[in-house]
Amino acid sequence: MEQHTAMVIFQPSGRRGRVPVGITLVEASRLLGVDIEAPCGEHQVCGKCRVRIESGVFEKFGVHSIAENAGPRGDAEGTLLTVEEKRQGYRLGCIAKVQGDLLIYVPESSRAGKQVVSKAARDIDIKLDPGVKQYTVRLDPPTLEEGMADFERVCKSLEAEYGLSSLTIDIYALRSLAGSLRSGDWEITVSVWMDKEIIRVRPGRECSSYGLAIDIGTTTIAGYLCDLATGQVVNTLSMMNPQVKYGEDVVSRISYHMGNPGGLARMSREIIEAVNGLIDMAAGKESGGDEALENESVINGEDIVDVAICSNTAMNHILLQLDPEPLGSIPFTPAIHHSLNLKCRDLGIDVHPGANVFFLPSIAGYVGGDTVGVMLAEIPHLQKQVQLIIDIGTNGELVMGNSEKLICSSCATGPALEGAQIEFGMRAAPGAIERVKVDPVTHEVDYKVIGRNAWKSYSAPEEMKTRGICGSGILDVVAELVLAGIVAKSGAFSPKGRESDRFRKNDQSGFAEFVLAWAEETSIGADIVINQKDIRQIQMAKASIYTGCKLMMRHMGITSLDSIKIAGAFGTHVDRHLARVIGLIPDCPLDAVSSVGNAAGDGCRAALLNREKRVEADKLWRRVTYIELTMEENFQDELVAATQFPHMKDEFPYLEEDGADN
Amino acid sequence: MEQHTAMVIFQPSGRRGRVPVGITLVEASRLLGVDIEAPCGEHQVCGKCRVRIESGVFEKFGVHSIAENAGPRGDAEGTLLTVEEKRQGYRLGCIAKVQGDLLIYVPESSRAGKQVVSKAARDIDIKLDPGVKQYTVRLDPPTLEEGMADFERVCKSLEAEYGLSSLTIDIYALRSLAGSLRSGDWEITVSVWMDKEIIRVRPGRECSSYGLAIDIGTTTIAGYLCDLATGQVVNTLSMMNPQVKYGEDVVSRISYHMGNPGGLARMSREIIEAVNGLIDMAAGKESGGDEALENESVINGEDIVDVAICSNTAMNHILLQLDPEPLGSIPFTPAIHHSLNLKCRDLGIDVHPGANVFFLPSIAGYVGGDTVGVMLAEIPHLQKQVQLIIDIGTNGELVMGNSEKLICSSCATGPALEGAQIEFGMRAAPGAIERVKVDPVTHEVDYKVIGRNAWKSYSAPEEMKTRGICGSGILDVVAELVLAGIVAKSGAFSPKGRESDRFRKNDQSGFAEFVLAWAEETSIGADIVINQKDIRQIQMAKASIYTGCKLMMRHMGITSLDSIKIAGAFGTHVDRHLARVIGLIPDCPLDAVSSVGNAAGDGCRAALLNREKRVEADKLWRRVTYIELTMEENFQDELVAATQFPHMKDEFPYLEEDGADN
Repeated sequence: MEQHTAMVIFQPSGRRGRVPVGITLVEASRLLGVDIEAPCGEHQVCGKCRVRIESGVFEKFGVHSIAENAGPRGDAEGTLLTVEEKRQGYRLGCIAKVQGDLLIYVPESSRAGKQVVSKAARDIDIKLDPGVKQYTVRLDPPTLEEGMADFERVCKSLEAEYGLSSLTIDIYALRSLAGSLRSGDWEITVSVWMDKEIIRVRPGRECSSYGLAIDIGTTTIAGYLCDLATGQVVNTLSMMNPQVKYGEDVVSRISYHMGNPGGLARMSREIIEAVNGLIDMAAGKESGGDEALENESVINGEDIVDVAICSNTAMNHILLQLDPEPLGSIPFTPAIHHSLNLKCRDLGIDVHPGANVFFLPSIAGYVGGDTVGVMLAEIPHLQKQVQLIIDIGTNGELVMGNSEKLICSSCATGPALEGAQIEFGMRAAPGAIERVKVDPVTHEVDYKVIGRNAWKSYSAPEEMKTRGICGSGILDVVAELVLAGIVAKSGAFSPKGRESDRFRKNDQSGFAEFVLAWAEETSIGADIVINQKDIRQIQMAKASIYTGCKLMMRHMGITSLDSIKIAGAFGTHVDRHLARVIGLIPDCPLDAVSSVGNAAGDGCRAALLNREKRVEADKLWRRVTYIELTMEENFQDELVAATQFPHMKDEFPYLEEDGADN
Repeated sequence: MEQHTAMVIFQPSGRRGRVPVGITLVEASRLLGVDIEAPCGEHQVCGKCRVRIESGVFEKFGVHSIAENAGPRGDAEGTLLTVEEKRQGYRLGCIAKVQGDLLIYVPESSRAGKQVVSKAARDIDIKLDPGVKQYTVRLDPPTLEEGMADFERVCKSLEAEYGLSSLTIDIYALRSLAGSLRSGDWEITVSVWMDKEIIRVRPGRECSSYGLAIDIGTTTIAGYLCDLATGQVVNTLSMMNPQVKYGEDVVSRISYHMGNPGGLARMSREIIEAVNGLIDMAAGKESGGDEALENESVINGEDIVDVAICSNTAMNHILLQLDPEPLGSIPFTPAIHHSLNLKCRDLGIDVHPGANVFFLPSIAGYVGGDTVGVMLAEIPHLQKQVQLIIDIGTNGELVMGNSEKLICSSCATGPALEGAQIEFGMRAAPGAIERVKVDPVTHEVDYKVIGRNAWKSYSAPEEMKTRGICGSGILDVVAELVLAGIVAKSGAFSPKGRESDRFRKNDQSGFAEFVLAWAEETSIGADIVINQKDIRQIQMAKASIYTGCKLMMRHMGITSLDSIKIAGAFGTHVDRHLARVIGLIPDCPLDAVSSVGNAAGDGCRAALLNREKRVEADKLWRRVTYIELTMEENFQDELVAATQFPHMKDEFPYLEEDGADN
């Protein structure tokens, strides 16, 4: 039997499994809970189910994926795919068949189902003073007597009317100056960057100017398209980081660079392509934007005149093609702390060619511009209260302190809390389990999926169409299993839990597992379970964060915190109570704990929209002291101890002290 | 007979003529006095005689040149030309045959004969303070405790050791920072632009840094490769401007842009390709450099870290892809006066990717950065003496004044004084007539060619191997013909001249002509003549300059000048006496007249090597008042009067008052 299946992995969702040889890729995607768009019903006419076969040996997944493993091309592919697409390895999912192991990339445009806002922009208070502003001037036509060139006459007016002096002009803006003046009947609108450089010139009175704040995470990328005239977020966008195929964490990407000549440039190109995909979405060219643009506001890439980017230090290095190797070993030295102002065109970012991009500064090798973004949004450095801010992504970054002292550190959480690398993990899309309740007596499971308001207990099984578990659901599941006594303090299934009807041992994987949704409730035709390995990953993640918090408090010489803020895509959904009781965060009054959403993205947006925030960013990296947790005394012991559940006995009436041997 | 010949034009020399159909392009080049390199003796094995067939209708030349007119490809071309070369229309000159009209571009690498320095750098006094300087620093290796990133640690050392503060870094330099520090054992040399930006990083103690000053003329391009550590010119280079195929003057290039979509980008690309060819020559990759680099100094494009460019305003616009259309009509408004600092990579200039290029500012639509360069070299604004500086190229630019008042203007001279558009005109290369004497009694002609010290009268005819007349020779020829009474005051051949054995009327062209060299003295197998049309062009050129000078003096309210400087490629060779007597320049004591060579190139080099000169350049365009000569009273009358020869009767004993009707 074994020889009639092949391993198929879909990127960027990471969904994988063995499927029968001979089925189409669309059929395989259904088996594995990945939705590929196929509006024509797989009749080989719409060409919407384009996917790309990734070629190479992917040691991480144990697959050797080659074009031949997807079978020969069909006639319809000759007409529905461009020459360039064919060259890049694109196939139609309704034609290509599984003939061997495959790593398949599903581009955003081929993914069915609108993504749910997991990184929505919060309504934070930003004083509008954007890096790029528009100015309209009207000139008198030139004369032979006056003899002044176009640029100098524009500068003279800008100085007289707006007090702007010593301006320079980008070559692309200069190229359109003469034409804009003459076609605009001597009235033009210029976009000026930081009161220094004219970066865009348009004829007449022109208001269309947007900025894009981008938060590049190890696993996900979020973008906020802002109207620079009002500061309003007009579109929120997100997608998976295409680099996940090189490994789930930054260390594996650094390794990929070190082991593959050209690997850095390749990863950089992929992330830039993803950013450009985000821009296409923002401009309404591709679906995926989270908010519908008003009808008149379908914009063009050239309407975007400013970009701000925050990311962790390794992602920042890879995007900029800075050698990340020194980040991989002690003393984890970054190439640069400072913020950077670059031309978008130098990186291949497809916005207005005169536009600059602002990169938030990095604090340390493992505390990057995303953490600076979090601080710009939450301003712990301006408060007397001692705050702890936990930014949970694939890495966890911790900031602790107040206006007097600030420290930060980083801990390896892995992508489990984002729903990745979990057996049935998936992104926050329709069908993903996001909330769970487990009855401690009957072990019955109730849950809610994204895209459906009614909980399972109020629905017919076939109405649920459950597809997997998203990041926000995974913590609920584990906490509920612990609270119900199904999972013991050690993280193993308890003897009581093992008696449950939903408990079983999977012969293929060898792991003990607990069924959350029976096949009849799902759209993938298989039981959705959480297994022992998934629980171990959540344990490691929460232990890592808890230990970091504890060691930082010791470093600060404090025993209690005034407030705890949980940030990250994860943070938008976190149940404060459950987070505390499973020991994700230190003991603290519940009302001192709050979720602040994607604070890194908010801070990035603040830098886009307020130039003082850019100055503040460069002061922040100097002000925060980085603590290398692994060098702290007792780190390893503390970490091991923290893997256990829970820390507050009195809240766990059903707690099982000991797990059974799985 | 007529149908068995075809018109063949070789670029960039401009040599043209009808040749028999069926001969190879190498054979045609010999007939027309163009040397194509063919070391294998046309045995179709060396591939050195690569030429490019330009496709299109070239109205200026009255030819419709297409690939088919060069006959079918031969087998040897399949192996000796690359796919890319074939795509671009390259052929081997020993295989391709003339089958119809052809416009043929001969690349620098296929041209035989080393170019003579026509734009040599003068030894002007420049205080060495280049825009880019090198600094070597040695750092302690980073530690976990210190925690500082590479860039900040380098900046700290640069500030401590050299007082450099607030530095930024180019992305390309940043990309090599981590690697250079580690491979250089924590010692690096950085190139810093204007004390502001780190543009290059190299491991260890590295001294190799060069700058390139480029003077882009309408007809010729000159480059000076300078060692930034010493200020020495290490190589001088020149080539034709490939844009000559679109017309000899800037107006025809502006017309080409207006009549051809994409024409501006095409012309820009060609000039950038030419600049890159110059860089290859400078780096010793292609022959054409005028001075041999010492053996150890074969450099790489990446060794060039700074570039300064001066050009007339139209060339500047075309290179930068700024719409030149407004320059074509009143009030001739340029896009910008100001100097520009751009990244070389934004223009496609192949030097170090972090390098900047400084463009000298423009004064007016027809007085550009080249004139600013002339002023930087000759500093009339710092002197009490009233100077007149005439920069003779395809356009003539005039600067007049002193530290109190400075005016400038432009006059259309055409390329005749550069040896272009003259029947037997050629560039300053071996075989070109550069000096002439005509006996007023016998009308015998003596002359000297470039590359041979002995004059004709001391040589056997076959030793001369004369090929044409270069720019410096053309003025000599006309002046001598006038002095000998062969050409009359009106510019027509005098009755006496028409009796000369060397006088004849050419039936094909219809022009009267005077033989300078008989076929036996030439390497082209034909008599070399100067004809009535050539003389008319020289008359127009000299009248144009003379009128400009006169009207400017009137404008300044002066009747005499303290000194006259003649600049330009032409200027390096000018005979002061002859220039004055034929009325090129106003009456003035001979010792007040001097040649200052390529002063524009010298000023450009000064800006490259001294940053104060860059500041001075931006003050200069504000300080000089542009006079539009064509708007001056009596311009047309003065111009017509000035076409006559000569202005000083007593120096012309043989002068013929009236010309015969030609």
